[in-house]
Amino acid sequence: MNRTLSGKLPRSIGIIGGGQLGRMLIYCSCKLGFQYVVLDPDPSAPARPLAHHFIQGSLYDPASLRQLLEHSDIATYEIEHIDTRVLLKAEQAGHVLYPSPRLLEVIQDKWVQKEVLSKAGVPVPRFFSFDGSGLPADPLRRDGEPSRKEKSLAETRTPSSRALKEILMQLSQEKGIPYPLVQKSRKGGYDGRGVKVLRSPADPPMDTPSIIEEYIPFQKELAVMVARDRSGNTASYPVVEMVFNPDHNICDTVLAPARIPADIAEEARRVALRAVEALDGVGVFGVELFLTQDSRVLLNEVAPRPHNSGHYTIEACLTSQFEQHIRAISGLPLGATDLIRPAVMINLLGEEGAGGIPYVEGFEKALSIPGVSIHLYGKREVRPFRKMGHVTILGTSTDEILKKAEEIRSILKVRSIQK
Amino acid sequence: MNRTLSGKLPRSIGIIGGGQLGRMLIYCSCKLGFQYVVLDPDPSAPARPLAHHFIQGSLYDPASLRQLLEHSDIATYEIEHIDTRVLLKAEQAGHVLYPSPRLLEVIQDKWVQKEVLSKAGVPVPRFFSFDGSGLPADPLRRDGEPSRKEKSLAETRTPSSRALKEILMQLSQEKGIPYPLVQKSRKGGYDGRGVKVLRSPADPPMDTPSIIEEYIPFQKELAVMVARDRSGNTASYPVVEMVFNPDHNICDTVLAPARIPADIAEEARRVALRAVEALDGVGVFGVELFLTQDSRVLLNEVAPRPHNSGHYTIEACLTSQFEQHIRAISGLPLGATDLIRPAVMINLLGEEGAGGIPYVEGFEKALSIPGVSIHLYGKREVRPFRKMGHVTILGTSTDEILKKAEEIRSILKVRSIQK
Repeated sequence: MNRTLSGKLPRSIGIIGGGQLGRMLIYCSCKLGFQYVVLDPDPSAPARPLAHHFIQGSLYDPASLRQLLEHSDIATYEIEHIDTRVLLKAEQAGHVLYPSPRLLEVIQDKWVQKEVLSKAGVPVPRFFSFDGSGLPADPLRRDGEPSRKEKSLAETRTPSSRALKEILMQLSQEKGIPYPLVQKSRKGGYDGRGVKVLRSPADPPMDTPSIIEEYIPFQKELAVMVARDRSGNTASYPVVEMVFNPDHNICDTVLAPARIPADIAEEARRVALRAVEALDGVGVFGVELFLTQDSRVLLNEVAPRPHNSGHYTIEACLTSQFEQHIRAISGLPLGATDLIRPAVMINLLGEEGAGGIPYVEGFEKALSIPGVSIHLYGKREVRPFRKMGHVTILGTSTDEILKKAEEIRSILKVRSIQK
Repeated sequence: MNRTLSGKLPRSIGIIGGGQLGRMLIYCSCKLGFQYVVLDPDPSAPARPLAHHFIQGSLYDPASLRQLLEHSDIATYEIEHIDTRVLLKAEQAGHVLYPSPRLLEVIQDKWVQKEVLSKAGVPVPRFFSFDGSGLPADPLRRDGEPSRKEKSLAETRTPSSRALKEILMQLSQEKGIPYPLVQKSRKGGYDGRGVKVLRSPADPPMDTPSIIEEYIPFQKELAVMVARDRSGNTASYPVVEMVFNPDHNICDTVLAPARIPADIAEEARRVALRAVEALDGVGVFGVELFLTQDSRVLLNEVAPRPHNSGHYTIEACLTSQFEQHIRAISGLPLGATDLIRPAVMINLLGEEGAGGIPYVEGFEKALSIPGVSIHLYGKREVRPFRKMGHVTILGTSTDEILKKAEEIRSILKVRSIQK
């Protein structure tokens, strides 16, 4: 079905990655009349049953990526860990990709990301780069990988754990950023992996190219979904509060709206918008923020895609983050982001000790509670803390929904059949 | 993914018919973790791109229906015009089908439907049966088809148009139901087809087995979506107001909630619930009602499936009619039916004179209005008055959304490229 006479709007949208975000992108935006092509290495990827066309292949395989792009009028991705070199080439060859592969390159390297944002005036924790080889990082080198010369140097003098500790202690003093420090590997970290808190100079740092940040003893972690379309129009969603489970460092509860004063909420939206504009982003972006003890808002990280902290928008906002993403990248106007009702989202993680074929304990009981929406991602295998689904609860007050969330959490468990 | 240890819940759901209702059934309920198998004769059926498995075949073809049932744990339908004999046999062979084929048989014959409902105490317009052959219908014969004996009788004395008029006039006097009358063919009518208003004895009736009803000069046409699960639990949605376009007799605007006093809304919900209970229905049902000039509520018709008058529930209610249908037939508890915000739904019909490849004029402009959700069904061909999509508008007041609906109607048109 054509939606314009000129044929300017795409008909088919390629999605690199077929996980839960791809799955929700499809079922939350297909009403707009698009068809979807999905690339994923897993033949039982969550998005596959809803895809019009599925390509099984690695996200790093140039041939598979090209196949996806050839089947789609425009393409996007639901995961950051893709080979940007292939995407950059495809873009040069005329394929339309949002957010741009150039932006993805910046995001993929946490140190480069912070450099770009901080230079654009976005408030961030103080930081410096730390090369696991003991060499100072080159600010002009964006890929986070040591050059051949540096590699051979590093190989001949790979520093001991003790030497690394000393180098870091020195750098900490030089930069005037005291311990505790947070070390994050520049590339590939995800859901708490590749992150280490160094409480004192006695803690050995990871020996990987990293960004070192001051440790922020925050009041709250906040997040804002920001949408930006192809013409640069922006829209931001209500500020939410992210609650991380200390056991596994994965955010397991999102509360919308955040329990913060109006002026701080406004500042959080402003910071988030500025970040997405600094990145020249097109699509939706999950912007994670710290609210410091002295009530400053600092940017923590930007995800160039729909984000866990925005799942609540499916039921609670006039336009879901997934529909918004598709609107933004396809050239449609952005939708309204108003919160219709207060909401809480909880992640449905695999239970500790679970492994194998999943089943959802308490599914029927949880569904009988008014205002509860359960989204199961259809993953074939459960692992401890793996994201298997999520639950959104709508209500009229924060107290009411937080109480219901606790109830749901005690009822609903993803376990495995075998173990 | 299993949702119970016992494996009691179905994994795959078969949908007979792949039109827009099938399409919305999938995208509104797949979050619950089901997969869908769809049967439709049209290779470009709207539900196909979202179906996990698509079977191309006639809804009347026993082999295709059996194939669908064999691929599904439970099955349902999104259209009433199916061969119930095949479904009844399948049910006897152990396939699980909701709503039951027995109920579908009752619904398919408008006279039988009214008989069953009226005997259960549901208020309906006064009616009698009228056999196009001029013979009185046999109240015990449920299929609406004349017997062999009657057929041969009818063939030897097929009444003239004049004779039919006289027979009907006599019956009208005998039953004490004066003109104007509404004649509806017992089987196969849809969207105004198979319905004729007979203003006086001079109007010739259709010569088909029919139900004749008193003409109700209603204040309003109302509708209520009712859900009933496999254990007999029920839930009803807010009463809505249906506005029919006099040009083509298709409902083109649905307003939720209806502008009626609370006691009438309560009565409407009571009548609708009683009707679905009388039919022993499982699933969701679209119950169309008349509100008479003297403020009585009379049942007009029951659709055994999600219904056009319930599309607004996707955005405006805690549980959409589509998710509710899947909950009801799959053995899950029913969801809450609360209206979150006032809503208006308008159908997006093919423009007069349109034919061929469709395009949607004003798509981008309409999407830029806050609170507007557009659902395009992805049909490959547009015809005048064909349902090509719908629009739901959420707002805070009835006046506001009705005004927006008028604006949308003037912006958004489905035309064709060729003509």
